[in-house]
Amino acid sequence: MEKIEHIGIAVRNISEANKIYETLLGVAPYKNEEVESEGVQTSFFRCGESKIELLEATNPDSPIATFIEKRGEGIHHIAFSVTDINAAMKRLQKEGFVLLNETPKIGADNKLVVFLHPKSSHGVLVELCQEIENI
Amino acid sequence: MEKIEHIGIAVRNISEANKIYETLLGVAPYKNEEVESEGVQTSFFRCGESKIELLEATNPDSPIATFIEKRGEGIHHIAFSVTDINAAMKRLQKEGFVLLNETPKIGADNKLVVFLHPKSSHGVLVELCQEIENI
Repeated sequence: MEKIEHIGIAVRNISEANKIYETLLGVAPYKNEEVESEGVQTSFFRCGESKIELLEATNPDSPIATFIEKRGEGIHHIAFSVTDINAAMKRLQKEGFVLLNETPKIGADNKLVVFLHPKSSHGVLVELCQEIENI
Repeated sequence: MEKIEHIGIAVRNISEANKIYETLLGVAPYKNEEVESEGVQTSFFRCGESKIELLEATNPDSPIATFIEKRGEGIHHIAFSVTDINAAMKRLQKEGFVLLNETPKIGADNKLVVFLHPKSSHGVLVELCQEIENI
């Protein structure tokens, strides 16, 4: 993995959380984006070479709604940057990691993304992502 | 915050988790360290400018043992680098964030650290840390 691309945080109310994280991190979000396919409203804050992504569910079937119902607000996933998502998927599948999607899908912030099942990585939902420009 | 210093992941068995994370990240841990005051055995992996820290409880009263008992293995905290931990503590306390320790304490990997209560930051346990060399 090249770097931590972002950390995803599940929140109930993104407007309130944006204010708290702007104070905490000392910067305003550089982007707000809805990802309809995932049922989420997102905002992104820069922090060094990485980002903090806040996620609020936009419908009750969203994975973020399910997560908050089970565990409350908190850290939802870690995303790592890769230069070749297909090569990374092949390598990790061969090593026994379970992928949650078999082909990369389009995620927030102009990325191709794939998720690894948390059971593969000691309870951590891992996302791999590749900039769409790099394809 | 300057950057994400590390992400802390609570695991039941650090030897097993070290193998999984070495495969996932493509690098071996650069450090294994016990922090007696926190009741944890830790290992650190580099990932870009940040690190992944695995934590196994060394006694049943360790915060990591309590966390795993309640929520299972998974992401435990995010640590951000600051250049002046005392100034950051003052600023955040003034803004209404609740500190879990009133004075910085010595953490793993040669750092002075302070934790913010998760209720201050939408369910996320936040650590601030400053390199001891920079004091």
